[in-house]
Amino acid sequence: MSTVGQPIDCKAAVAWAANQPLSIETITVAPPKKGEVRLKILCTALCHTDYYTWSGSDPEGLFPCILGHEAVGIVESVGEDVESVQAGDYVIPCYTPQCKECKWCKSPKTNLCQKIRGTQGRGLMPDETTRFTCKGQNLYHFMGTSTFSEYTVLPEIACAKINPKANMVGACLFGCGLSTGLGAALNTAKVEPGSNCVVFGLGAVGLATILGCKKAGAARIIGVDINDKKFDVAKKFGATEFINPNNVENVVQTIIDTLDGGADYSFECVGNVRLMRQALECCHKGWGVSTIIGVAASGQEISTRPFQLVTGRVWKGTAFGGYKSRDDVPKLIEDYMNGGIDADAFITHHFDFEDINQSFDALKGGDCLRAVMYLDKSLKK
Amino acid sequence: MSTVGQPIDCKAAVAWAANQPLSIETITVAPPKKGEVRLKILCTALCHTDYYTWSGSDPEGLFPCILGHEAVGIVESVGEDVESVQAGDYVIPCYTPQCKECKWCKSPKTNLCQKIRGTQGRGLMPDETTRFTCKGQNLYHFMGTSTFSEYTVLPEIACAKINPKANMVGACLFGCGLSTGLGAALNTAKVEPGSNCVVFGLGAVGLATILGCKKAGAARIIGVDINDKKFDVAKKFGATEFINPNNVENVVQTIIDTLDGGADYSFECVGNVRLMRQALECCHKGWGVSTIIGVAASGQEISTRPFQLVTGRVWKGTAFGGYKSRDDVPKLIEDYMNGGIDADAFITHHFDFEDINQSFDALKGGDCLRAVMYLDKSLKK
Repeated sequence: MSTVGQPIDCKAAVAWAANQPLSIETITVAPPKKGEVRLKILCTALCHTDYYTWSGSDPEGLFPCILGHEAVGIVESVGEDVESVQAGDYVIPCYTPQCKECKWCKSPKTNLCQKIRGTQGRGLMPDETTRFTCKGQNLYHFMGTSTFSEYTVLPEIACAKINPKANMVGACLFGCGLSTGLGAALNTAKVEPGSNCVVFGLGAVGLATILGCKKAGAARIIGVDINDKKFDVAKKFGATEFINPNNVENVVQTIIDTLDGGADYSFECVGNVRLMRQALECCHKGWGVSTIIGVAASGQEISTRPFQLVTGRVWKGTAFGGYKSRDDVPKLIEDYMNGGIDADAFITHHFDFEDINQSFDALKGGDCLRAVMYLDKSLKK
Repeated sequence: MSTVGQPIDCKAAVAWAANQPLSIETITVAPPKKGEVRLKILCTALCHTDYYTWSGSDPEGLFPCILGHEAVGIVESVGEDVESVQAGDYVIPCYTPQCKECKWCKSPKTNLCQKIRGTQGRGLMPDETTRFTCKGQNLYHFMGTSTFSEYTVLPEIACAKINPKANMVGACLFGCGLSTGLGAALNTAKVEPGSNCVVFGLGAVGLATILGCKKAGAARIIGVDINDKKFDVAKKFGATEFINPNNVENVVQTIIDTLDGGADYSFECVGNVRLMRQALECCHKGWGVSTIIGVAASGQEISTRPFQLVTGRVWKGTAFGGYKSRDDVPKLIEDYMNGGIDADAFITHHFDFEDINQSFDALKGGDCLRAVMYLDKSLKK
């Protein structure tokens, strides 16, 4: 029996309140309205942003909600006027949409489409309502994606249609962490061949950044982390050296000495404002570019002496690696399929969807880069 | 009688101590050593950096010294191995030298030649000595230029040889303020045609920045200053609009509203860290670039929320407008001679060299853009 135009009852991991284990519930997912797409999620990964909101640290977090934003799904049905995808297409949900009409989309300088920013930030679809209900309650959407559910509804402009032949397990990581790190190096910093790079924080985003630096042809890539075990991992992605800040007197000076004046490009992948300052100040006078990738806790501020900038350092930041989602994610997937990006190497943990709370514990530990949860069990090897 | 190889006794304005009126003294200027050039200064202007050091606010200021760094001189004699200039050449002393050999000079990304930075910062010539004596005391050099003297000695790498047919009175301003502002817009920010610019602080550097934005083809240029009288002046240089922060509730929001999202390019030309933050935060999300030109007081820091950068704004700075001094200053003078830069419009006050203390009073008032002091009286009309 076709589900088109009908509500679907399915399983989802509901976050009823901050810092409480997710609860696997049967929810009802309304059919897509005009300009919307309903996806059947195949697999989804856990990212720190999910964790951050779940933990209650995000003052803008809304509950009850369905978290999740790194995933792959198949289009189950589309609403009125949807033209770019159809039932059966493979899609990566993109929390940074691309309407191709707003002034941000029309500018080659940014990927920050603003078309649905207001409602997305308030956990709603563009028409100010939600498509999720459970036990008579509406559930909020999260980042416009809400992939911790067997079915979810997205605006069409948040659907990046990808090659159906891709390995969907690795592909799901391009929904956030992998694209963010790669693009930080390739689009935002524009790392040049032969340059010296420093990456603060060797989680998945940091390692993806290292991979981006390597793809750009960097000569030296220093990984910085307080966990010594991270170096062996980082080497696989392209790191040539490692510094543990706990083992040196002054990490900024150590980097400046090691790289004969400092980094040509540095990246902060932790979300710690103290490290953001270090990342800027370890840059080479005259031309060093420091890119902030990590998301700092609410209310925190970065500081430095203006002399750092007047003497030629540049401070910038990136969101989703500067990629225009619907145009660029499909290309990243092609690169992945052609062996240019080893996405699979980021997946350290696998869980059945029902065991999603275990992925939160895993991410909190130090060994997890990405934990993938399988909604389509046939994908789990 | 030739003065070549001989010490020269001449008049200079000596700063014996911070915040004391300069004293016109007879000093002795030693002949140039190897790689050095002795200049007869024709005219010199007063810049805020001279004022800042003179006032005692610069913790690295050294006394007694000879201040001054915006000037034009004629080469009186050269030391051993000097090849790029000879007696009779017209030269603009450059506090940012260009050795053409160090890694900074070889990089196209920076103008911050580091060849003589150490000694210059300590008020000495590269051989660690001074060329100035007065009443048995050595006098420190200042910024490697010390132009408040009838004669001064510079490293050859600090001498930009210019067209002898230029109007030397206007030409002297290219030694600092004019080049700094123009280059901030043209080299550092790389203002694009049709863009919207905001300039905080409408002194000489701010007006030169406005001129640079106009030369780059900016569509709208908003001048920001707490002195309403500055707007009429700024209009002459290209400003299209004016905001007095004292007349609006929130200058950042006013700019964002006025420019439909904010500035494509903003510039801080005051040296106030609070304004540096405003200049960044009034930039357009996604692509706004804010350039710090002003020099903040020692120890002060800039701050902002990292979100400002993660959402696409870029924070940078500039010194001497990014111009490589010996290569670029002669080209700026050609542009001035061809009518491309109205340097003369910056000169509001004229003084005999002996009345140099009056120029400090003038600069402290609000009406002075640049005061020129004449050592060669024939230049004063």
